[in-house]
Amino acid sequence: MTHEPGAGFAADAYSRVSGLGLVCVTYCVGGLNVLNAIAGAYAEKSPVVVVSGAPGRQDRQKDPLLHHKVKTFETQRRVYDEVTVASAVLLDEQRAASEIVRCVEACLRYKRPVYIEIPHDMADRQIPTRKFNLPPPERSDPRTLAASVRETLSLLKEARKPVILAGVELARYRFAGLVVRIAEGMKIPIAADLLSKSAVPEDHPLYLGVYGGAMSSDRYVRRYVESADLVLMLGTFITDMSMGFYTAKLDRGRTVLATSERLSVQYHCYDSVELGDFLRALAKANVRGRPSTHPSPRPVAEALRESERSDALRMVDVFRILSLHLDERCCVVADVGDSIFGAVAMRSARQAEFIASAYYMSMGFAVPASIGIALGRPDLRPFALVGDGAFQMTGVEISTAARLGLHPVILVLNNDGYGTMRQIRDGCFNVITQWNYTKICELVGSGDALKASTKGELDSALSAARRSGKLTVIEAKIPRTDISPQLATVSREVAKMRGLSL
Amino acid sequence: MTHEPGAGFAADAYSRVSGLGLVCVTYCVGGLNVLNAIAGAYAEKSPVVVVSGAPGRQDRQKDPLLHHKVKTFETQRRVYDEVTVASAVLLDEQRAASEIVRCVEACLRYKRPVYIEIPHDMADRQIPTRKFNLPPPERSDPRTLAASVRETLSLLKEARKPVILAGVELARYRFAGLVVRIAEGMKIPIAADLLSKSAVPEDHPLYLGVYGGAMSSDRYVRRYVESADLVLMLGTFITDMSMGFYTAKLDRGRTVLATSERLSVQYHCYDSVELGDFLRALAKANVRGRPSTHPSPRPVAEALRESERSDALRMVDVFRILSLHLDERCCVVADVGDSIFGAVAMRSARQAEFIASAYYMSMGFAVPASIGIALGRPDLRPFALVGDGAFQMTGVEISTAARLGLHPVILVLNNDGYGTMRQIRDGCFNVITQWNYTKICELVGSGDALKASTKGELDSALSAARRSGKLTVIEAKIPRTDISPQLATVSREVAKMRGLSL
Repeated sequence: MTHEPGAGFAADAYSRVSGLGLVCVTYCVGGLNVLNAIAGAYAEKSPVVVVSGAPGRQDRQKDPLLHHKVKTFETQRRVYDEVTVASAVLLDEQRAASEIVRCVEACLRYKRPVYIEIPHDMADRQIPTRKFNLPPPERSDPRTLAASVRETLSLLKEARKPVILAGVELARYRFAGLVVRIAEGMKIPIAADLLSKSAVPEDHPLYLGVYGGAMSSDRYVRRYVESADLVLMLGTFITDMSMGFYTAKLDRGRTVLATSERLSVQYHCYDSVELGDFLRALAKANVRGRPSTHPSPRPVAEALRESERSDALRMVDVFRILSLHLDERCCVVADVGDSIFGAVAMRSARQAEFIASAYYMSMGFAVPASIGIALGRPDLRPFALVGDGAFQMTGVEISTAARLGLHPVILVLNNDGYGTMRQIRDGCFNVITQWNYTKICELVGSGDALKASTKGELDSALSAARRSGKLTVIEAKIPRTDISPQLATVSREVAKMRGLSL
Repeated sequence: MTHEPGAGFAADAYSRVSGLGLVCVTYCVGGLNVLNAIAGAYAEKSPVVVVSGAPGRQDRQKDPLLHHKVKTFETQRRVYDEVTVASAVLLDEQRAASEIVRCVEACLRYKRPVYIEIPHDMADRQIPTRKFNLPPPERSDPRTLAASVRETLSLLKEARKPVILAGVELARYRFAGLVVRIAEGMKIPIAADLLSKSAVPEDHPLYLGVYGGAMSSDRYVRRYVESADLVLMLGTFITDMSMGFYTAKLDRGRTVLATSERLSVQYHCYDSVELGDFLRALAKANVRGRPSTHPSPRPVAEALRESERSDALRMVDVFRILSLHLDERCCVVADVGDSIFGAVAMRSARQAEFIASAYYMSMGFAVPASIGIALGRPDLRPFALVGDGAFQMTGVEISTAARLGLHPVILVLNNDGYGTMRQIRDGCFNVITQWNYTKICELVGSGDALKASTKGELDSALSAARRSGKLTVIEAKIPRTDISPQLATVSREVAKMRGLSL
C-alpha cells in the first residue's frame, strides 16, 4: 500500500471476507499510523494480526535515542494494548513460538486484533517450535444452556409474530447458515442491521431488509420489526448506529439477545452459554413455525426506464442503478456517510456481498478495503462507494490496486464536501477542494476514468466497467444539497427527538 | 487538510516555526489517525496541542456502544498518555479552564504535545475563568549552577580547539542568539546536527556545517569536530540519527552536554541546572577566546555552468542547484530518506530555514509540513524535498495548499521506489507504482507542473517557480541506483562497522 492507514483497512477487509488478516508495519512511524484502522477492527470484531518491526534486543541497552522511538521502547506495545486482545514482544527465542500461537489463538477466538512485535535482530532467527497445548474451547454449562434454550423456545412457541435480527457475529463466527436453518425451520423472517448487511443471503425468501430504526432500508422492514412480539437478536451489536441513533423501538421485554459475550432473555441474563451451542440447540429443536406473516421478499430495484436516462443523478439513484449491475460475484464496499446510509436500501436480484465500517465509521475505509477484498476473495469484484471527502483521504490507494493487477470499480459520490457532516453541523470545515477525480487515473497511470451526472450516464459507466473488467473510477456528480432518503429520515427524526443535531 | 496524518504534520511544523501548534480532530477515527504525527512531535520536542471531540457527558452513562468508540470512553486518552506530557478530559465545567491552562503550560514548558478532550455537549458551554496560579518557572540551584559554570569555563580556558555542537533545543527554547553570543565572545566555531540544521544562522562566519559522524555535511566539519579537544553540546539530542548511526567519534572525556533535561561535564552530572541559566552565565563570562582555528565559512554551492546544463540529474545535483535558488525568505522542508541525508550538505549564500523530521524519521512529513510552515510564517516560502515513496503517502495535501492560497514548491525526487530502504535491505517491498507525479496538479485543479531530468531543467524549473510565485510541483527524475554522497558514506561505514546493514 502507499500509506499505512490504507494497509490497516485492507487487512481488516481481507479478514472480513476470509477469516483472518495480517498487516506488517515499521516500528512506530508505521505502527502508530495504522492504529486507527486496527481500532476499527477491534470495534467491529475483525481479527487482524499486527506485526511490527522494532529496535533490536542489543540496541535496547542503556535506553538510547534510536530513530522512530517515542517515549520508551514500550510505547508502541502499550498503545496497542488499548486496541487489541493480546500482544507480545518477541525478545526471547525460546518463548517466541508459543507467544505467536497465544496471540493468534486469541485473535481467532475473540475475533479481535492482536499485536506482535519483532526486534529486527530476531527477524531472521530460527526459533524452536514444539507441540502447543492450545487452551480448550470455551464450553457452555449444560444445565444453563438447556434452561436458556427451553425458555427461548417457549417464547417462540407463544410468539405470533417473531423476527430474527441477524448480527455481524454470524459472519465473523460463520454461524449464518445455522441461523438460516433456525429461520427456515420455524418460518421466522430475518432482518439484518447496518453492520451485518449481507451476513445472511439477501435473496432468501425470509429476508426482510436492513433494520435500524429511522435508518432502516424501508418503512416495511421498520414496521415489521417494531411490531414483532419477539425479536431474536442473534450475534448483534447494539450500537447507536445500528439502532438508528436511538430511533429504534425495541424493548427488552420482547427481546432475546444472544452474542459471543452475553445471553439475555427479556430482563434476565444467562452466564456460561456459548453462542454456537445456543444456536445449534435452537436449530435442532423441532418447533413448528406458524406460516410467516412476511408475504414475500421485498421487490428489488426497479429497472431503469429509457425515459429517465437523461434525468440528473441524485443520491437515491446511485444505489438503485448500482443494484441493477450487481450479482453474487460482486462485493459492495461502502465508505462512511451517505455511501453507507444510502446503501442500506440496496437490494440486488442476485446476492452481492457487503462490507462497511458501519459502526466505527472511519472515513477512507472503502478504497483500501476493496484491495483487501480483491486479494482475500479473488472470485469477488469490489464495487467501492466513496464520498469525495473520504476519497481524498485514501483514494490514491487505487495505485496499489493497479500495481497488484486488481480491478475494483470505484464510485466517487461527489456532492462537493462533507455532505453528512453538513446535516450535523455546517461550517467552513465541511468545505473541501473540488478535485478532478477522474484525473487520478492519469496520476497513477492506470484505470478507466468515467463521469456521470445523469442516471443514464451512471448506468452506461457501470456497464462499461463490467464489460472491460478493468480498474475503473467513476465520478458521480450529485447535487450539493441532495442526500439519501435514509439520511434525510434519520436526520429529521433525531432532530425531533433530541431537539438537536446528530 | 484532506486526511488527519497530514493535519498532525502541519501542526507540528507550524509549531516549529512559530512556537506552538494546535490540531483539532474527531474522536478516535480522527484522533488515532493523527497519533503518529504527534508521537513525532513528542520525539522531536515540538509543542502541539491536540484538541479532540468526544462523546457527550450524557452519552457516557451505562457505557453504550457509540460510533467511533473502541474499548472504553477512556481509550483515546490512555493512548495519548503514551505520547504527551499532559492530558485532560473536560468533563467538569468548573475545572475546565484550569485544566486547559495546566495542559498548555506543560506543552510550552516541556516543548512536547498535550491532549485535551472535549465532550461534544461541552463545546458550546461558557466556562468560568479566573486568575490562574501558574507553577513558577523551574530555577537552578545557585551554587550548583555556579560550580557547573566554573568548571565549564575552566575547560574552555584550557581548550586549544573547542567547538560548539548546537542542538535543536536552541530553536525550541529560543536560545540560539545566546549561543551565538557565547561563540562570538570566545571565538568558538559552531556545528549543527541533522535535527538542528538552521537553528543557528548558516551564514555566520563561525558556522562550520552539519556534524553527524559519517553523515556530516562534508569531511571538513567531520574532521574539525572529531579533532576538537572540547565539544560543547548545547541543547543537543544524542540520537542514532544525529550521530550518523554510531559512526560519530565523540567521547565523554572531552564533552560538556547541556540540555533542558541534563547537564553533564565529562564523566559527571550536575542536577538542578536550567539550560537557560547555564547559557546566560556562559554568555556573561569574560573568557578571552583564542583566535578560531576555523579559517572561514565553507564555500557555498558552486554556480551552475552552462556546459553542464544538459547533464543528467543526479541526487547530489538536486541539493546543489536548489541551494542556488534559496535565500532568507525560503524554508527548506525535507522528508525522510535521501531528501534529508542529501540536504545535510546544503548551504546557501543567504540563510534559508530548514525543517525536517530528522530524528523520528516519519515518511510523508514534508508536504503537509510545508502547509504548516506557510501558515505559521507567511514571510517564508516552503521548498519541500520529498521522495516518490513519501509523496505517495501525503502528497495530495497540495490540495489543501491550493485551497488555502499557499504557494509551496514541491520537489518530488523520483528515484523509482524506496531508495534509502534499498540501501538497508532490498526486496519487492521497496517497489512502488510509478506515478505521473506532475499530473497531481490536474487532479487537485491547481499548481504548475514541471519536470526535470537534467541539471539545466531543474535550474529552469526552480527559476520558473520563483518567478511565478505559484504553487509548483517539480518532478526531478533521478537514476534508480543513484544516492547522495552522505547516504553512500554512512551506508559504507555502517556496513564495515557492524558487518551488517543499517
